[in-house]
Amino acid sequence: VPKVSEAHKQRRREQILDGARRCFARYGYEGATVSRLEEETGLSRGAIFNYYASKDALFIELAMEMSKRLTDVWLHEGFRAVLDAIVREDPDWLAVQLEATRRLRTDPGFKELIEEREEELRGERSERLEQVRPKVRDDVPLEDAVVFLSFVANGLALRHTVGDPLPDLDVIAQLVDQGVAPR
Amino acid sequence: VPKVSEAHKQRRREQILDGARRCFARYGYEGATVSRLEEETGLSRGAIFNYYASKDALFIELAMEMSKRLTDVWLHEGFRAVLDAIVREDPDWLAVQLEATRRLRTDPGFKELIEEREEELRGERSERLEQVRPKVRDDVPLEDAVVFLSFVANGLALRHTVGDPLPDLDVIAQLVDQGVAPR
Repeated sequence: VPKVSEAHKQRRREQILDGARRCFARYGYEGATVSRLEEETGLSRGAIFNYYASKDALFIELAMEMSKRLTDVWLHEGFRAVLDAIVREDPDWLAVQLEATRRLRTDPGFKELIEEREEELRGERSERLEQVRPKVRDDVPLEDAVVFLSFVANGLALRHTVGDPLPDLDVIAQLVDQGVAPR
Repeated sequence: VPKVSEAHKQRRREQILDGARRCFARYGYEGATVSRLEEETGLSRGAIFNYYASKDALFIELAMEMSKRLTDVWLHEGFRAVLDAIVREDPDWLAVQLEATRRLRTDPGFKELIEEREEELRGERSERLEQVRPKVRDDVPLEDAVVFLSFVANGLALRHTVGDPLPDLDVIAQLVDQGVAPR
């Protein structure tokens, strides 16, 4: 059996995640059947589930990838760039993530799976939290500031999915900075 | 036929709205069947649909009622009180409203119905907007400030439905005030 290289595995993972994201966006969570996941990724169910244990695991991975990516944008380009990045996301993909909040309430298995994954990423997360420290005023608790920013980001995502007219994002970023940015 | 008094009609409307809110929260939008709406309101479908044209109309009315109520809280008690009011809402009811954002994208009839209702309430809305003017700094566009506050409110609602630990709401209100409140 030839050894599969790390680079190859990484490309496969990306192929699966990209296809799955499109599939969830197009058909909704329930509608993203295994056959449709095969179609959108161009891979067999065997190949897909070789990398991700289940449809749930795939969905959670995608949601966490987005959250991580947006944190990186904040870190390297500022919160104004985060707002732009959200508006560039596929509204259907954002909508299906919002839809999942109800499942989080009604399906204990789904919630457990997320908590396990968060537990695994705890170290990475607290490292990132340290990195963003200089972006936040000293006199504001860092965790509260991060949650505040997530409120604004999620509020924008929600509005973007609904298709309501967007506010001036420069103004929004300024309002956020007034509270959070170091003086 | 005895004439039904305005007060009686008003009580009936409240009875229907309260029962319907419980019903949507408990069973989700799809699961809130007409029989279950009858059960939760204690009224027949004839009585219910005499006041509200459809399940959609009932749902939209409830969502708009909440949005109006929270604006009144902001006006009379400040934004800190809005945050408290959101945390006091039934998370299941908030979750079903979030769930509806996907339907808004996929069901043009639902979207039209909302737009019609918003059109009817346009006068009332711009009147309320004038009332909140003194709550917002002169140099911040009023519409943008209102959208910003809705981002924070919706972000909190989302977190509340998910059941993640809530931040210190005093800190959140302070961060908001830094940007929005008159100096």
